Amino acid sequence: MRKPFGVSRRALLAGLGAFSAAAFVGPLPLRAQGSDPLPSWNEGPAKNSILDFVRATTNPGDPKFVAPDQRIATFDQDGTLWVEHPIYTQVAFAFARVVALAPQHPEWKTTAPFSAILAGDKAAIAAFSVGDLEKIVIATHTGMSVESFSSIASAWIATAKHPRWNRLYTDLTYAPMLEVMKYLRANGYATYICTGGGQDFVRTYAARTYGVSPEQVIGSAPHLSYAYEKNGQPVLMRDPRLELNNNMSGKAEDIYLFLGGPPRASFGNSTGDQQMLEYTQSGSGARLMMLILHDDAQREYAYGPATGLPDTKVGTFTQALYDEARSRGWQVVSMKDDWKRVFAF
Amino acid sequence: MRKPFGVSRRALLAGLGAFSAAAFVGPLPLRAQGSDPLPSWNEGPAKNSILDFVRATTNPGDPKFVAPDQRIATFDQDGTLWVEHPIYTQVAFAFARVVALAPQHPEWKTTAPFSAILAGDKAAIAAFSVGDLEKIVIATHTGMSVESFSSIASAWIATAKHPRWNRLYTDLTYAPMLEVMKYLRANGYATYICTGGGQDFVRTYAARTYGVSPEQVIGSAPHLSYAYEKNGQPVLMRDPRLELNNNMSGKAEDIYLFLGGPPRASFGNSTGDQQMLEYTQSGSGARLMMLILHDDAQREYAYGPATGLPDTKVGTFTQALYDEARSRGWQVVSMKDDWKRVFAF
Repeated sequence: MRKPFGVSRRALLAGLGAFSAAAFVGPLPLRAQGSDPLPSWNEGPAKNSILDFVRATTNPGDPKFVAPDQRIATFDQDGTLWVEHPIYTQVAFAFARVVALAPQHPEWKTTAPFSAILAGDKAAIAAFSVGDLEKIVIATHTGMSVESFSSIASAWIATAKHPRWNRLYTDLTYAPMLEVMKYLRANGYATYICTGGGQDFVRTYAARTYGVSPEQVIGSAPHLSYAYEKNGQPVLMRDPRLELNNNMSGKAEDIYLFLGGPPRASFGNSTGDQQMLEYTQSGSGARLMMLILHDDAQREYAYGPATGLPDTKVGTFTQALYDEARSRGWQVVSMKDDWKRVFAF
Repeated sequence: MRKPFGVSRRALLAGLGAFSAAAFVGPLPLRAQGSDPLPSWNEGPAKNSILDFVRATTNPGDPKFVAPDQRIATFDQDGTLWVEHPIYTQVAFAFARVVALAPQHPEWKTTAPFSAILAGDKAAIAAFSVGDLEKIVIATHTGMSVESFSSIASAWIATAKHPRWNRLYTDLTYAPMLEVMKYLRANGYATYICTGGGQDFVRTYAARTYGVSPEQVIGSAPHLSYAYEKNGQPVLMRDPRLELNNNMSGKAEDIYLFLGGPPRASFGNSTGDQQMLEYTQSGSGARLMMLILHDDAQREYAYGPATGLPDTKVGTFTQALYDEARSRGWQVVSMKDDWKRVFAF
């Protein structure tokens, strides 16, 4: 069964429950950056792999040199560029929309899955099926024009806050990864987001949050229909079915659709990124594949079998993925050990 | 019925028959270009509309100024950037592939529609249905990896010649339009191709022919499937069904998918471009919409009701489209009157 907008059941099974209130992690003093483009990274193999990749691929005398027009990197978003726990930000948005739209749908009070959200029934929410999520996404993400959806999403993301830090979701980006994006761009790389989440949702904040323009956001997308308003003006309507399911194999397929070939570097954190990383490596010449391991319960979250902790279902980094990373030579990044700080705040 | 890869029946109804051998049009002497970025254009409203648009949108003091990151233009290909008569180049490619693959398909000798191509039966070819074309496209464009297809297409386009001029198809680009693309790029505009033809076919030559990189080619595209080869390497296979039908409404829908909004300028020549032009105009601020009218039988071709000549079915510029252009204020370009020369050779 196709997943609605790349939002999977995993988004919910982590539960909306309590989490230990980790101590607030204050900002580290910015050290004099000098020539270090990655000051939020600790010295080590992960940091070096990025520096070495960029140095080699931008040095015309190096056999790994990459022509400027081929310098493209792709980044997963949830769990790679910003926090994905306890639920994906876009799922929080969808739930908020159910609440906001409830007055227009009195039947939702007694109709699953909407009733569970309206009642705040965490057990029922945690048991949502893919079909339940599909209904929620269709009710909240489709049936309006692309402009209407973007306005709604923009208004929500401008004020919605993460429950743990009580900060805007857009503040919960990883400082080390923003540094990687800037460093790559400063060296002629185009930085694309390749997200299982909704392309249009991410487009509403990608420019100011990541410095990524709308045409460099690849994501799950609904089918669109071209129609005319009464005044003769065209309008694109969001239909209740999926055009691109940009997750797992879909990431590789859609990267090809958008770019015409594999990127030179890609960054992910879960099984949803497996094929993107494999596809990146399938190209000839220098390639950089990195996997972010969430092993820092203190400063962020720790989850997934590869951490030795139970699989929490959101952004799963399985043992199989870990083994593949090792066997294929991908660089695994430990948030705990490789990142000097996690957030910019 | 969905059209296979944007190739429509119109591609064929023009017939493969004889055309009057127009006199070879030799190269005009390049006049000293000085400050004229469009030397192949005659002075007049069409040329001025381009110059005025670029001047206004790149002048920070002008109310029509467009921020650099919003400077995007989209170009139809067939009939807008290069010759589309007597048949689309990609249809010529498909027919050539049928001939090349025939030894592996002995049954084609007696199986329509392949038999008509192998026998050179022009009447039967001219009567092909959409279903016939679909079979031909599926047989020649799908069932292989994306790399295999690109290799095959690249090899063909490198040597195949247009019957009238006996020149490579890639030589049959319109010099005035290449100047527009260069002029726009020199002023910070990204120039995208938005073609009803196959995205991957166009990608094989777009960089060297138009200066357009693979990620800036939007076109019709097959569904892809991610698979593994025996050695564990991933491969993307071209499936026998359409993912994007980038024609008519599909052009507007896919522009949104790729760019996240309407372009600032767009250029077309047929009813297949109607929605792209409408969608371009639907955005706020300065927008430029241009339609190329094929009214030059001497130097190229003349066709379509708007020319007062019979509709030849390839790249139709109907009276309705002409009327819409006038009522919406789009700039119609007469190849005969507005272009000083058509080709660079």
